[in-house]
Amino acid sequence: MLLGIPKELASGENRVAIIPSDAKKLVRAGAAIQIEAGLGLGSGFSDQEYIDAGATVVEDRTQVLSTADIVLRISKPTIEEIKALKAGAIHVSYLDPFNEHELIKAFRDQQVSAISMEMIPRSTRSQKMDALSSQASLAGYVMVLLATTKLPRILPMMMTPAGTLKPATVFIIGAGVAGLQAIATAKRLGAKVVAFDTRSVVAEQVRSLGGKFLEIDLGETGQTKDGYALELTEEQRQLQLEGQKKQIAESDIVITTAQVFGRKPPVLVTKDMVAGMKPGSVIVDMAAETGGNVEGSVAGETVVVDGVTIIGNGNWANYVSRDASQMYSSNLFNLVDEGWDGEKKAMAIDLENDILQGCVITHGGEIVNETIKNIVK
Amino acid sequence: MLLGIPKELASGENRVAIIPSDAKKLVRAGAAIQIEAGLGLGSGFSDQEYIDAGATVVEDRTQVLSTADIVLRISKPTIEEIKALKAGAIHVSYLDPFNEHELIKAFRDQQVSAISMEMIPRSTRSQKMDALSSQASLAGYVMVLLATTKLPRILPMMMTPAGTLKPATVFIIGAGVAGLQAIATAKRLGAKVVAFDTRSVVAEQVRSLGGKFLEIDLGETGQTKDGYALELTEEQRQLQLEGQKKQIAESDIVITTAQVFGRKPPVLVTKDMVAGMKPGSVIVDMAAETGGNVEGSVAGETVVVDGVTIIGNGNWANYVSRDASQMYSSNLFNLVDEGWDGEKKAMAIDLENDILQGCVITHGGEIVNETIKNIVK
Repeated sequence: MLLGIPKELASGENRVAIIPSDAKKLVRAGAAIQIEAGLGLGSGFSDQEYIDAGATVVEDRTQVLSTADIVLRISKPTIEEIKALKAGAIHVSYLDPFNEHELIKAFRDQQVSAISMEMIPRSTRSQKMDALSSQASLAGYVMVLLATTKLPRILPMMMTPAGTLKPATVFIIGAGVAGLQAIATAKRLGAKVVAFDTRSVVAEQVRSLGGKFLEIDLGETGQTKDGYALELTEEQRQLQLEGQKKQIAESDIVITTAQVFGRKPPVLVTKDMVAGMKPGSVIVDMAAETGGNVEGSVAGETVVVDGVTIIGNGNWANYVSRDASQMYSSNLFNLVDEGWDGEKKAMAIDLENDILQGCVITHGGEIVNETIKNIVK
Repeated sequence: MLLGIPKELASGENRVAIIPSDAKKLVRAGAAIQIEAGLGLGSGFSDQEYIDAGATVVEDRTQVLSTADIVLRISKPTIEEIKALKAGAIHVSYLDPFNEHELIKAFRDQQVSAISMEMIPRSTRSQKMDALSSQASLAGYVMVLLATTKLPRILPMMMTPAGTLKPATVFIIGAGVAGLQAIATAKRLGAKVVAFDTRSVVAEQVRSLGGKFLEIDLGETGQTKDGYALELTEEQRQLQLEGQKKQIAESDIVITTAQVFGRKPPVLVTKDMVAGMKPGSVIVDMAAETGGNVEGSVAGETVVVDGVTIIGNGNWANYVSRDASQMYSSNLFNLVDEGWDGEKKAMAIDLENDILQGCVITHGGEIVNETIKNIVK
């Protein structure tokens, strides 16, 4: 079975879907691997390292795509790239399946089995394939560090002969994977950390990391079986805004990580709240690229509004592309391994498998995913 | 006595010499204060805060300089600015007195008492005025954080369902004030930290911060009475280079902080050593602006050489301008306070005072500093 790994073409993307050490493990399991020349340069992996791992390097991107039995990558493909795939091939990548209906139809029509990395179910067994979590964890670390380099203060308390600098206050909204890592990183750096999440069940996790949990009574809230926050009612969102207001004004750094999977993220920091912060304060809007939690944030950019720096850069894990590649590559390896038949030396799509059932979107010329089937027109 | 505080004009400089709370203390001690309009905006202090502290705000920079009995600032002045000063006035700033001979002669000819903040002696009593130390400490923090945002890896170890990320290795050359703070910051972030200093007496301090001290036998070395490293012989420098080579190749981040006061800093990381680092590694050259410890570093810039990012930005404390201003302002307040006569409500230059003896360069139309007197032609 031939695995094809094309270069990532998104501007600024340095990550790579498979690192040489995982390529080696796949070759050892019986796969053949073809990579596009220069694949890993952005993360510091040379073509020679892939050759040493047993892969073949080719210059022609179309060849990588059109001959592969399995394509492994990070970003979603273009329609043209889908049309270059073999019928019966498997294509694994992020896919944004709630929005990319044309891509899904193209996969279906091309008779390709498309696996969406966003749709890996959240279960104990699938954790090792969960790229959203692995990349979000790194994002939490990166967002804190980017904020520190824009903040005109240091995070830790510093006692000196010339007086004492008070610790900075970091407020983190949303204590999912990214939020928890942000809390841990800000604590490591000596900040005073406060966090909020609509799921009060995470309060204990926040406290165990040394953060203070901001108590806001929203009435009935909850989370999905996958651990995502349920969307709030408009009334609840107003209660949250009101409850956070004072904390935002008192904070040096605010990091928003509230995403509702598949939907536009809620606005949690309004223009007024931005204006109410001290000059020089910093906000990081994790969700800027999909609409944003912060009024005034700009996708892909760092802007200054009313003296407050708002970081909406996005693709956070890409800042630590080498570690992010290692994690994503491991997630992909574990996914291929999940479907791998050791005797046939091939990956099979078994829709009875609970994990594949969740993340396989198209197969055998049909949209097979129950959730996506109903929304693609 | 009228204190004048002009804006800092150096490009990108956000710090301010006196913050409003110290202005208030000076007014309470009996001083009058005139500031240039917009003085503190870069650090987030409005003119109104200075007015509330009892200061007067004027638009005319020349008025601030020409009417002041004491001028307090950060950067050295221009010759023209010195010529605007009153005879008998006191001027406090960084001065680079080993190199800026023309400025010193201009101060002398203008009958101004020039105090150089670099020349505050290093003693227990003068610590609270020691701006080099207060700013270097912040620089140590800033350099680590700037490096982390360029490194394609995270610093801490991270154990995840998709495998373990090993901690990054940070190597810090020079364990003075900046180096020790860099060690502490990198340790906080979970890195493996190794440090070297030609003064083996600091090994214990490195270890107490959780760093490993790299042992290199250089034979006889030492430090000045002010705690600065003595310059090495060429043979010793070669031994140091050889001893550091392997550690540099194994490190993800190298931070060089080796400055020899008043002289060009030694080259400690050669082109070959840069090329020997892993792709994506990061070097911070603290001394880039005065010649550099690293071959290939560019003053004021971040460059990539052989796949290694070399950060030579400089003015490190300015990244945390608000805290840096608070510390510098406190240093200045303590210095003025040292010479303050509570009855006359004025600062007097007493050359018998051990601290003023060290840092007053010109006074009464003469170059009075013993060290500087001999080098200014």
